[in-house]
Amino acid sequence: MKIIVVGASGAVGRTVVDMLGDRHEVIKVGRSSGDIKIDIANPDDIRAMYQQTGTVDAVVSTVGHGHFGPVAEMNGNQFMQGIHHKVLPQINLVLEGIAWVNDGGSFTLTSGVLNRDPIRGGACGAAANGAIDGFIFGAAVDMPRNIRINSISPGLLQVSVDRYDGFFPGHDPVASDRVGRAFCKSIEGVISGQVVIVD
Amino acid sequence: MKIIVVGASGAVGRTVVDMLGDRHEVIKVGRSSGDIKIDIANPDDIRAMYQQTGTVDAVVSTVGHGHFGPVAEMNGNQFMQGIHHKVLPQINLVLEGIAWVNDGGSFTLTSGVLNRDPIRGGACGAAANGAIDGFIFGAAVDMPRNIRINSISPGLLQVSVDRYDGFFPGHDPVASDRVGRAFCKSIEGVISGQVVIVD
Repeated sequence: MKIIVVGASGAVGRTVVDMLGDRHEVIKVGRSSGDIKIDIANPDDIRAMYQQTGTVDAVVSTVGHGHFGPVAEMNGNQFMQGIHHKVLPQINLVLEGIAWVNDGGSFTLTSGVLNRDPIRGGACGAAANGAIDGFIFGAAVDMPRNIRINSISPGLLQVSVDRYDGFFPGHDPVASDRVGRAFCKSIEGVISGQVVIVD
Repeated sequence: MKIIVVGASGAVGRTVVDMLGDRHEVIKVGRSSGDIKIDIANPDDIRAMYQQTGTVDAVVSTVGHGHFGPVAEMNGNQFMQGIHHKVLPQINLVLEGIAWVNDGGSFTLTSGVLNRDPIRGGACGAAANGAIDGFIFGAAVDMPRNIRINSISPGLLQVSVDRYDGFFPGHDPVASDRVGRAFCKSIEGVISGQVVIVD
């Protein structure tokens, strides 16, 4: 398969590349590194990326960040950071990419744990995850040419424990290989319209 | 209780007003009718509304619409209609309203069926519903002063069957009194951080 991985240098992206790179043609995409460099927030960059790759079998997105902070101190612009930096870029990868994905190919987006196992200050991220999970569930029934779409919703990554120290009390860290296998299931398997939870 | 109902003249809003109006002080808010008229998409209008009502015991939102159409023909701006017209207005009601809600009061937002029982062309709405459901789950753990927050996720309303004829094949219509009771549970009950499904 020819597979685009957007966010290939991130914690999740590296896992996906490690697991798929030896048996597929992986095109690594990132903001400042990779085979193709784009600003995922810019739809023109996304269109240029697809023109450069040509048709592919799978598109994987592992990008996104949002605002962290208590709702009592949050404003609408802070809330929208999750939409603008996690939701819309991933949705645009799908909307702009459908024409570039081969019959039976797949999109795999990344959501996360916050909309099923909340933490303090995580409401913006929880909303972003919910939007992505909702979108893939709604979009799966609409996809042309047997294209599939799923989201992967990993818990706190083992490799990110130090970075988020104290923010996820009691959350069992998830090993990278388990997260990677969830992406394999979406890309190489048959499922569609599923939120693949990795806890 | 003193209760703000935003979207009081809509199909869901009327149900809430009918069920709560005889035992509570209900302040009806709408774009073109009601006790207070506001453009819910304008945060200044929301702030002005709270200044006019003063402190309240419950805030209910039943507003929102989005784009309907297949993902293969959808663009990013169309996707964002659900965010701008259903998600952000309801979130702003919460973010601007926390300071105006009495201790132990509540917010009750409205999501919907599309992110659990999809229909053709419903991906934008499914994402919007997912964002709302995710937000209330994440926000509930952050709320100060025992303020509660829930979303009501009704199926196709009996009163809206004619309006959506053909778009929801096989969906069992939901009677208004059942939807009304879900709002009562959120407003008058004890739950928080719950998506109350009414199917």
